[in-house]
Amino acid sequence: MKQRHAFTIAGTAAPRLDGVEKVTGKARYTGDLDLPGMGFAKILRSSLPHARLIRIDARKAEALPGVYTVLTRADITGLNYLYGATYKDQSIVAVDKVRYAGDPVAAVLAVDEATAEEALTLIDVEYEDLPAVTNIEEAIAPGAPLVHEGESFKAELRGSQYGAPEKFKGTNVCYYFGYSRGDTEEGFKNADYVYEDTFRFPKVQHCSLEPHVTLASFEEGRLAVWTACQDPFTLRDHLAGIFNLPMSRVRVIVPYVGGAYGGKLYVKGEPIAAALSWKARRPVKLVLHVSESFKTITRHPARVRIKTGVTRAGRLVARECEVHMDTGAYADAGPRVTQKAGYRALGPYRIPCTKVAAYSVYTNTVPAGAFRGFGSVQVTWACESQMDLIAERLGMDALELRLKNLLKKGESYSRGDTPVDCDLKEGLLKVAEALEWGRKPSSPYTGKGLSCCIKDAGGTFKIAGAMVKMSSDGSVGLLTGTVELGQGSCTALSQVVAEELAMDLDQISVAQLDTDVTPYDVSTSASSSMTVMGLAVQRAAQDLKKQLLRAAAKVMGKKAAQLALKSGKVCSRGGRGVPYGNVIADYFGSKAGEIIGRGTYRDVISKKAVLGSPTTFWEVGWGGAEVQVDPETGAIQVLKYISAADVGKAINPVQCEGQDEGAVFFGLGHTLYEEMIYEDGQLLNPNLVDYRVPAFCHLPREFHSILIENGNGPGPFGAKGMGEGGLLPVASAIANAVSNAVGVRLYDLPLTPVKVWRALQAKGPARK
Amino acid sequence: MKQRHAFTIAGTAAPRLDGVEKVTGKARYTGDLDLPGMGFAKILRSSLPHARLIRIDARKAEALPGVYTVLTRADITGLNYLYGATYKDQSIVAVDKVRYAGDPVAAVLAVDEATAEEALTLIDVEYEDLPAVTNIEEAIAPGAPLVHEGESFKAELRGSQYGAPEKFKGTNVCYYFGYSRGDTEEGFKNADYVYEDTFRFPKVQHCSLEPHVTLASFEEGRLAVWTACQDPFTLRDHLAGIFNLPMSRVRVIVPYVGGAYGGKLYVKGEPIAAALSWKARRPVKLVLHVSESFKTITRHPARVRIKTGVTRAGRLVARECEVHMDTGAYADAGPRVTQKAGYRALGPYRIPCTKVAAYSVYTNTVPAGAFRGFGSVQVTWACESQMDLIAERLGMDALELRLKNLLKKGESYSRGDTPVDCDLKEGLLKVAEALEWGRKPSSPYTGKGLSCCIKDAGGTFKIAGAMVKMSSDGSVGLLTGTVELGQGSCTALSQVVAEELAMDLDQISVAQLDTDVTPYDVSTSASSSMTVMGLAVQRAAQDLKKQLLRAAAKVMGKKAAQLALKSGKVCSRGGRGVPYGNVIADYFGSKAGEIIGRGTYRDVISKKAVLGSPTTFWEVGWGGAEVQVDPETGAIQVLKYISAADVGKAINPVQCEGQDEGAVFFGLGHTLYEEMIYEDGQLLNPNLVDYRVPAFCHLPREFHSILIENGNGPGPFGAKGMGEGGLLPVASAIANAVSNAVGVRLYDLPLTPVKVWRALQAKGPARK
Repeated sequence: MKQRHAFTIAGTAAPRLDGVEKVTGKARYTGDLDLPGMGFAKILRSSLPHARLIRIDARKAEALPGVYTVLTRADITGLNYLYGATYKDQSIVAVDKVRYAGDPVAAVLAVDEATAEEALTLIDVEYEDLPAVTNIEEAIAPGAPLVHEGESFKAELRGSQYGAPEKFKGTNVCYYFGYSRGDTEEGFKNADYVYEDTFRFPKVQHCSLEPHVTLASFEEGRLAVWTACQDPFTLRDHLAGIFNLPMSRVRVIVPYVGGAYGGKLYVKGEPIAAALSWKARRPVKLVLHVSESFKTITRHPARVRIKTGVTRAGRLVARECEVHMDTGAYADAGPRVTQKAGYRALGPYRIPCTKVAAYSVYTNTVPAGAFRGFGSVQVTWACESQMDLIAERLGMDALELRLKNLLKKGESYSRGDTPVDCDLKEGLLKVAEALEWGRKPSSPYTGKGLSCCIKDAGGTFKIAGAMVKMSSDGSVGLLTGTVELGQGSCTALSQVVAEELAMDLDQISVAQLDTDVTPYDVSTSASSSMTVMGLAVQRAAQDLKKQLLRAAAKVMGKKAAQLALKSGKVCSRGGRGVPYGNVIADYFGSKAGEIIGRGTYRDVISKKAVLGSPTTFWEVGWGGAEVQVDPETGAIQVLKYISAADVGKAINPVQCEGQDEGAVFFGLGHTLYEEMIYEDGQLLNPNLVDYRVPAFCHLPREFHSILIENGNGPGPFGAKGMGEGGLLPVASAIANAVSNAVGVRLYDLPLTPVKVWRALQAKGPARK
Repeated sequence: MKQRHAFTIAGTAAPRLDGVEKVTGKARYTGDLDLPGMGFAKILRSSLPHARLIRIDARKAEALPGVYTVLTRADITGLNYLYGATYKDQSIVAVDKVRYAGDPVAAVLAVDEATAEEALTLIDVEYEDLPAVTNIEEAIAPGAPLVHEGESFKAELRGSQYGAPEKFKGTNVCYYFGYSRGDTEEGFKNADYVYEDTFRFPKVQHCSLEPHVTLASFEEGRLAVWTACQDPFTLRDHLAGIFNLPMSRVRVIVPYVGGAYGGKLYVKGEPIAAALSWKARRPVKLVLHVSESFKTITRHPARVRIKTGVTRAGRLVARECEVHMDTGAYADAGPRVTQKAGYRALGPYRIPCTKVAAYSVYTNTVPAGAFRGFGSVQVTWACESQMDLIAERLGMDALELRLKNLLKKGESYSRGDTPVDCDLKEGLLKVAEALEWGRKPSSPYTGKGLSCCIKDAGGTFKIAGAMVKMSSDGSVGLLTGTVELGQGSCTALSQVVAEELAMDLDQISVAQLDTDVTPYDVSTSASSSMTVMGLAVQRAAQDLKKQLLRAAAKVMGKKAAQLALKSGKVCSRGGRGVPYGNVIADYFGSKAGEIIGRGTYRDVISKKAVLGSPTTFWEVGWGGAEVQVDPETGAIQVLKYISAADVGKAINPVQCEGQDEGAVFFGLGHTLYEEMIYEDGQLLNPNLVDYRVPAFCHLPREFHSILIENGNGPGPFGAKGMGEGGLLPVASAIANAVSNAVGVRLYDLPLTPVKVWRALQAKGPARK
């Protein structure tokens, strides 16, 4: 870490700039907005998991007083109606088939929601039922019904290998990722033991407090949407494609977003809202119910078969991973997620011979896409559970086994990728220490578990731009394409500006995100904003600083090199400072004008790297849990949870802790409670009563976040991204602790009382 | 004019980009917007022209169901409640006194307009009546009641001389501008004849189709306003001052504006709307009635005494001008307008000795401020009427007299100012020719008149910035602070971009004006946008072009100098072109990223110039009228009107013609019909029934706009500003034609039938 002057704002727990607004309910989310003359939209969704669409008759619905229009397949043929994050396999409304129970078939625009709801019941749809596949096994079985027929798997994204080899044509596999190094056959021969285990991950939903909401206004060849989304620029690109417009005629505005977690990446309800506005020639408001968000996007259920060769001394020598990801009825980001899942299955360990095969598989269920962790969650659940299994089988301490194999700082994760940029041991030891690893739990049915995970930073080739404007009173506006979705980016990025420009945080405002005016940013995802956008923002502030010093030099009759910024003033050695506002007013000759700084960030492209671009940084998550299992009910109580995050430099420590806590509590959901349950192709629990997310009473009795700050990040002031890391170890740490507590090993999430109880019964009398 | 390649888009009559939207009623004006939870505001206005405010009791109004709050003087003491374009003499609501019938005393915010209206009637106000002054004569009479007591006339604006000498303390004069060159005493001695005449100009209103409308939302130390205004950045500065906020916490958004004409410059209804939102903690909508716009801002009534010395041969040798401008109850832009009126009284002629004294005078009438022409209209009415009087008295042809004295191109208007940048004779001769000047009218009671006027470009030191963004499909967004108020700036500025970037106009969009994100611009005023913002936009496009060529050079493996832009493609000699979008996508390695170009413009500051800064360009207006007078009624019919405008290069000829036509028809209003009539301090006709604006039936039977394009402007492609020029000659050209037709000379506008008839009666039997 470079030596710097003492920080004044970066590194402090500045209160959130959007805090008061949000806790007082004044903050405006998309759903709080109205457009003049707007109608309310409702979507008619398929009741069947798989069927051919024979006939749709919307005449009765259109005749209902108060209905402005009904959108069906007949309307969209003039549009480029197919879209998708990786493949154009999804349609605004169903055209030939419906592919899951919930697939949009038609949409109504009416004077109010009740009328729109009523009109839905008047749309007459005739289906021809088709056999459905609703899980990985059914989908990959020979002769399985095809979710998509005749689709081609050609790569659509430059520099990436989306698509699948010819041999998967005519199957439900829509993407394949393969990677290998060394000779795994040979590796397994050299191993003393080879273990093979299979783990499963359930279908879960993001459960953002705010569901998917869009306002759209299509007028005179221009489309404006206000929407809860994480990647407005990508969305703009997709909408421009669908409606055949130049991007300059598509405007995406993002108000505050009430949680996203990947569920608001790429295209969701926006094409339906926009198409309704296009047809009805009036603004449209589309607010999905929670139950509809459940039918819009989910995390990928996965099956991970993992085969590891290990020496008697506990050295990992070879590993084979076979990952199946159930991407549901449409690919969405599935291929990207599957690629990452495959790549991240290598784990944080030194394994000379590895071979990974990852498959994205269509099923007749809700599409799965991006979700906090982006494929890592599923594979680390498997890998880090198996690490403990191996330790148990070898009779070795689970910590010791990990320490023996962890990659060192500077070591290569894979050919051409960024070397490991932090000390993996450090965090693991800190967690172990906080968990009192060596000390046996005093209560019965109690045990401890550890987990250690690493992920590269992100799914997309990252480009970010930022702009910082100083007005003639010295106050500053920040233009950034990072979406404030609760993670605290507004505050943290403003702290970067305040630090660089030596000014108070309350003089800085963040402008509303609007693709018409905000500099381009790929997306708010992959824990990367603090690094990627952080750098763009820092560079913009530095650019402004340079111009401000030049202006001050002119105004003050000094050389720019003799001047420095301090507490909102330009200071010369010995002289008294001139407030920024005075510098600008003097420079422009009146209380007018402004200084604009610009900054950009772009990932490096490298053909040497497996994924085409070395990772911006490595995100690491370490977790340790102490649990108590109730042998009578199988219920797991998390007594203590320790999380450690490598943040480089915490720009706002309280926000970092909040992100880390949030990630862990999030992880408790899929670990202990959450699962979308299907029966006969129907989702049984698309609501927050039957689908259980953790409540406050489910939180660990004791919780600690450890922020490791070594200034080792590429971001501003040595920061690196965080926010997903905490989530990755949760399931395995808890499962490992359960095994440690009561000697049963579970392979399927969530770890419900029923499953634990059954495993206990199967194992025989419980030990204390 | 520099030789250039042939223009493809600049210079063509491209259809307005906002045309379809506007004619179909889809365009959103401020009044079309709603904010969630907003209340509706109404203003209680003083019924008396001048009174001390003894007591205000709002309790009954506040108790009315549906009333959110009432704002009175008691609420605003914590704010910097005084504001004003030049002096802080105006208060959000009246504090000590009311100074005109219509002065805001209190404001109500309620659930709807009707409730707000009703609540107004429940506010109990006790006044102590004070004697009022309602015209210039009353205001400057010795011992006149003072509109403002104890006010100081200190200059508030850097580099300008706003304020008035000590001797005006304790009078109603709030600003004095003096200028002289040569010895006028001596000059008059050398003259063969000295003529002195006094002319009057009435109080008129802007009559924008859209009245003053503001939405305000004050929340958590941030103020956002959507408002119909011409200078959002200046407004932001004022609001930041009133509410003690950094500018970065004040956001001004300007939707389409339905006409402005200067009436929406500086601060109007915004502080009341913002203060109501601040007090009520909810959004506010304030829509003034037409009658309230009449009570918000007007043009300055003026009295211009003009004394000119001339030789027998018709050479002007000396002139003294005394200009009194009635600025109403508050200064608003009055001092600026008065300064310009004084400066512009010099006229387009060579006069060795001149002396000007201009006074801004407070009266107990509606404040007067900026209005299309900005002081020129009043003084050119006087000067160009007197030119014909002189010609008549000398028995000389009015055209010949003018031609003899007109400044030549390159001659100095005043010390330190930009030399005259066009051929004044050229336009005058063109108008004369089109009017068949030498040919006697064939009908009886018919006559012709000419007028020629010059004005410097604008009231404020001009600074403008612009940004042009090209997305990864090659389409472009333009960020400009110029307000589209009907003048066609969106289209014309986009044409500049399209021309520079060799692309289609339909690929270009103009972003909504929002001070949070749009680069700074002083104001949309003074016919200067096409030059000032035009240059900023052109430079931004050129900056983008440079970067695009650099990126293309890299992608295409050529040198940037070998490449050129043509029809949306980067072309190398002989090679086929690469579309802009492909260049960007290749350069960034994915369909992502963008190229941003920036441009700025800044006026020169010069202490040598009389007004501190030489004018950006000279705006010239030439007009000629042929009229017929009905001797029975005194009614004037304009048979033919010829207008000529020096536009340098017409970026969009049809829009230029539209602006010029509009200016002339506008001028017909104050020439023939418009006048705000006061009786006992009460405005009698604040509505569009009793206050008459020209209707289609009043337009000249024959009308021609002549656009003179010599490429002599400093703007893009040789353009210069236009839009006010056409307005300036109208009144004098018509009055001169009336004199020519029936031999009566009128000194007071408007030239109503009654005035003409009386003059005819006074003169004796009408000649044919």
